[in-house]
Amino acid sequence: MTVPAPLTGVVPPVCTPLTPDREVDVPSLVRLVDHLVAGGVDALFVLGSSSEAAYLTDAQRRRVVESVVGHVGGQLPVLAGVIDMTTPRVLDHVRAVTAAGAEAVVATAPFYARTHPAEIARHFRLLAAGSPVPVLAYDIPAAVHTKLPADVVLELAEEGAVAGLKDSSGDLAAFRAVVTGARTNPALSGFSVLTGSELLVDSALALGAHGAVPGLANVDPAGYVRLDRLCRAGDADRARAEQERLCALFGLTGVGAPSRMGAGSSALGAFKAALHLRGVIACPATAEPQIPLSEAEVERIGKYLAVAGLL
Amino acid sequence: MTVPAPLTGVVPPVCTPLTPDREVDVPSLVRLVDHLVAGGVDALFVLGSSSEAAYLTDAQRRRVVESVVGHVGGQLPVLAGVIDMTTPRVLDHVRAVTAAGAEAVVATAPFYARTHPAEIARHFRLLAAGSPVPVLAYDIPAAVHTKLPADVVLELAEEGAVAGLKDSSGDLAAFRAVVTGARTNPALSGFSVLTGSELLVDSALALGAHGAVPGLANVDPAGYVRLDRLCRAGDADRARAEQERLCALFGLTGVGAPSRMGAGSSALGAFKAALHLRGVIACPATAEPQIPLSEAEVERIGKYLAVAGLL
Amino acid sequence: MTVPAPLTGVVPPVCTPLTPDREVDVPSLVRLVDHLVAGGVDALFVLGSSSEAAYLTDAQRRRVVESVVGHVGGQLPVLAGVIDMTTPRVLDHVRAVTAAGAEAVVATAPFYARTHPAEIARHFRLLAAGSPVPVLAYDIPAAVHTKLPADVVLELAEEGAVAGLKDSSGDLAAFRAVVTGARTNPALSGFSVLTGSELLVDSALALGAHGAVPGLANVDPAGYVRLDRLCRAGDADRARAEQERLCALFGLTGVGAPSRMGAGSSALGAFKAALHLRGVIACPATAEPQIPLSEAEVERIGKYLAVAGLL
Amino acid sequence: MTVPAPLTGVVPPVCTPLTPDREVDVPSLVRLVDHLVAGGVDALFVLGSSSEAAYLTDAQRRRVVESVVGHVGGQLPVLAGVIDMTTPRVLDHVRAVTAAGAEAVVATAPFYARTHPAEIARHFRLLAAGSPVPVLAYDIPAAVHTKLPADVVLELAEEGAVAGLKDSSGDLAAFRAVVTGARTNPALSGFSVLTGSELLVDSALALGAHGAVPGLANVDPAGYVRLDRLCRAGDADRARAEQERLCALFGLTGVGAPSRMGAGSSALGAFKAALHLRGVIACPATAEPQIPLSEAEVERIGKYLAVAGLL
Repeated sequence: MTVPAPLTGVVPPVCTPLTPDREVDVPSLVRLVDHLVAGGVDALFVLGSSSEAAYLTDAQRRRVVESVVGHVGGQLPVLAGVIDMTTPRVLDHVRAVTAAGAEAVVATAPFYARTHPAEIARHFRLLAAGSPVPVLAYDIPAAVHTKLPADVVLELAEEGAVAGLKDSSGDLAAFRAVVTGARTNPALSGFSVLTGSELLVDSALALGAHGAVPGLANVDPAGYVRLDRLCRAGDADRARAEQERLCALFGLTGVGAPSRMGAGSSALGAFKAALHLRGVIACPATAEPQIPLSEAEVERIGKYLAVAGLL
Repeated sequence: MTVPAPLTGVVPPVCTPLTPDREVDVPSLVRLVDHLVAGGVDALFVLGSSSEAAYLTDAQRRRVVESVVGHVGGQLPVLAGVIDMTTPRVLDHVRAVTAAGAEAVVATAPFYARTHPAEIARHFRLLAAGSPVPVLAYDIPAAVHTKLPADVVLELAEEGAVAGLKDSSGDLAAFRAVVTGARTNPALSGFSVLTGSELLVDSALALGAHGAVPGLANVDPAGYVRLDRLCRAGDADRARAEQERLCALFGLTGVGAPSRMGAGSSALGAFKAALHLRGVIACPATAEPQIPLSEAEVERIGKYLAVAGLL
Repeated sequence: MTVPAPLTGVVPPVCTPLTPDREVDVPSLVRLVDHLVAGGVDALFVLGSSSEAAYLTDAQRRRVVESVVGHVGGQLPVLAGVIDMTTPRVLDHVRAVTAAGAEAVVATAPFYARTHPAEIARHFRLLAAGSPVPVLAYDIPAAVHTKLPADVVLELAEEGAVAGLKDSSGDLAAFRAVVTGARTNPALSGFSVLTGSELLVDSALALGAHGAVPGLANVDPAGYVRLDRLCRAGDADRARAEQERLCALFGLTGVGAPSRMGAGSSALGAFKAALHLRGVIACPATAEPQIPLSEAEVERIGKYLAVAGLL
Repeated sequence: MTVPAPLTGVVPPVCTPLTPDREVDVPSLVRLVDHLVAGGVDALFVLGSSSEAAYLTDAQRRRVVESVVGHVGGQLPVLAGVIDMTTPRVLDHVRAVTAAGAEAVVATAPFYARTHPAEIARHFRLLAAGSPVPVLAYDIPAAVHTKLPADVVLELAEEGAVAGLKDSSGDLAAFRAVVTGARTNPALSGFSVLTGSELLVDSALALGAHGAVPGLANVDPAGYVRLDRLCRAGDADRARAEQERLCALFGLTGVGAPSRMGAGSSALGAFKAALHLRGVIACPATAEPQIPLSEAEVERIGKYLAVAGLL
């Protein structure tokens, strides 16, 4: 199966369920995929940040891609993250995930190393040259500590080095520059512009984005699919109401006490606790060294689910 | 061979020579090790930031450790970096480098993932539990975007979870808190406190550090060994003069134009260009996607070497 | 005249024209006000960041408020910035601008001093207690280096300490939290939520913002007023087209070479060059120590105006 | 009285005692000056960051300079901070503090405004042209969010635009570049290089700095003077012991709970609480909107003083 160009709709970054001893829980992963497919999503993105890719060993990453690709069996496109520090290491992941069946790869700018826009561009050109499948650029400054400049993204798009953008920068104005730049350039008619923000899907679609990659769609895939369809139908009022319901639900990511844990532990722990409470996955454990949510915090997550009509 | 506790003196982070097609150049690596040993260094640190560890594939990393450990044959302790994003991935590197013969490992705080001091501490505790050799903490905020708090380092030291600190933070006041905290605690008499700053080795030793891990020692190992010996002999005036000579030489790291490349490309490219000009390594190539120095820039590096009496 | 609650529509942050020797050019300022009023704007905001308030002496600030208030003569509400480091200094400005006739004041979080959310809240409470007119909070992390947390803003709103928010953070998701929080709380029906982003006015209005404070409205007030009216009429397609025309025009702020000047010099210089080219102000000079645009850069600004139909 | 060139020794940034209703407490200020003079300090720096200059109104600033200059009566040089956002505003402060008798002014890079190295240099050139007394550059990135580059400082020094540097950056390696650059340039024999770090005075003097501007010298002026004299006498061991005693005392700045207040409130509150406990000032109040220390926190400060032999 090839990835549509452009890719549209809801593409959840699939959480990676773990067993209590922190191995990939394949039966739960398969159930999670079924839950997302049942919700109506348009494609799957494994090994993203919400998938805890940064915490998975190479063997675990391979296991995830093989399990999901095998289970999906071509019903939906499967994109895979290839998150690592620099070009040579990312290319190793490209080989691994495409061997396991991924139909596109999603790569960030280099990190750990101090980098320069010229090096970011060179990185993506080399990835394109070495990848048998399309490469999407993943803009996530909170993780990599640089922002992909809109003009670099558009230049790489025009060269054919990147097939799309997944924007998790939170900077909607810069995102708009890519959306408008792509739309007004006939050579980029197949370029995919996707927002990673759970809270602004309606805004992003209204200004011309093709789709969304919301971590919260693990918890409520049907909600995001509904939101996407309302936006496409031009029903701005109901879209806004649905988005606001999802914004309220997103509050569950802030339940973990900032005095005890990082924002990542809180958000990823919340997604998994919610999936566990909804009966989708067997165990809410997150990977080490993340701090687990307390029982009281998990209870509060249950309340968010109840308010959103998800329990 | 075991690593002394504390480890003292000059411990260069060994550059990783590459062939023109970006494979590890083992003959050059071996010559570089000989050059460092001839300069009088006290131990070797492979797979650090100056070794381009962030750019090396797992196979290349293994090759480096095996080559250096095999060549050194127990004459000197060999420490190896295990640089990766989170605990499970770092533990994979711990297994690989210790299987290849590394006598200690050097690990950073988690990166890419947003992290919390409690998660940093948990990370090091889990590494200690999973490592057959001592773990040194590597404080490098420019790469990982968090600072290891002095009190966390001292607490981990007291628990025996970390055996030393390599400080590349540039924050000498915070470094001093660890040095003094370790010196005044009898339980920490074997804890190693090492500075990663090329420019402040005399200051760090004067306030009680045990040694230094200067990237520039690749280029002038004898100079740093001389500096270390002068400091230990209490000859402050000659130590300062030697340090200032090395500070001037360090100017070669700024030769690469900031309009064309990142500070990493400039510094690592300069170390390798200098080693090439001095006849130690066969090819000055740096790993992708770093931007190479121009011919004019390499010429300027030659002038720095000439002024320092190294050509 | 009192400020409507909520304040809606287009509220340009009025540029401060200067003479060649850097005094306030009152005749040009008055012409600029006429130009804005003719464009249909709903209120005026003097002494904001786009007004170069950070560069104006206390005497110049007073001159600006007196001139604008005197000229407007109650036709439109006039808000004034009171930008300074901490509470006691801001209160001095509150006294000065209200004595000169400002009908509301706009204050940032403390800066220069390292601050804490509890201190930010205390700051606004003390300002409210000391101000004879309503206080709007100005969220501008690029200048003050902290972000006003949405929950703090809403708490201050509920206490009556702040009457509105001007958001120049670029973080539309956090802005949405304030918009939705205010809309769903009957006690906050008069609270004004305004975006400072030139590039996302349509998005902000669509999610419920009351109005916009766009620096670029100095150059094209009629365009922003048209955009505002289209959004209110629910004409999403034409609103988006108008917004995109303004986004293209905004490109003029990037004309100044980043190798020669800061982003502020480039943007403020561009607004003034455009106003000069359009015949509104007599001299395009910006305050010291900003670097002026070159002749070639001013020519490029003329091209942006021509494309936008403004010459 | 003119300021020596270079200025050497201990130059405390004088705290500004306030009454309970936040007016300048002149009798306490005078007692504090006497306490510093009795401790042997070499000059006084009023209206610095530790003086809460960012919190003082223009009238209060004037009062401070007049009171201190009047009381000192030429026994010691008095430097005054002129902390404000940009050139025109800083020049207003230059006029005010020199009219009140300050013998040198100390200015930061522009802040609030986004700035560029070329604008920073222009700023200092304009200040020099407009100031009747020498201008020292104040490098304090924690407050102004840019770092003064060493090469810009040395270039300005060579032009005669700045007469010295007060470095509160915490970056000792960059500081060393200025120290060495000034020492090796005969044209800069009168240029003053001063460290603002309480914790590294011995290190800074060892590498060639002329003196120190330590906030903690308010609490223990005699300790810093002793440290300075030991360093000048070449008695490295006793200097290190004295520095370590002062490092331990500096722990009092961390007593204020970070969950309740910013680092500034904690440090400035601690200095004032210590001065109050030592009987030097009448009231420990800090300016608004800083959060006061609790009684328990003040008690802990008393313990630090007792350990340091200061009660």
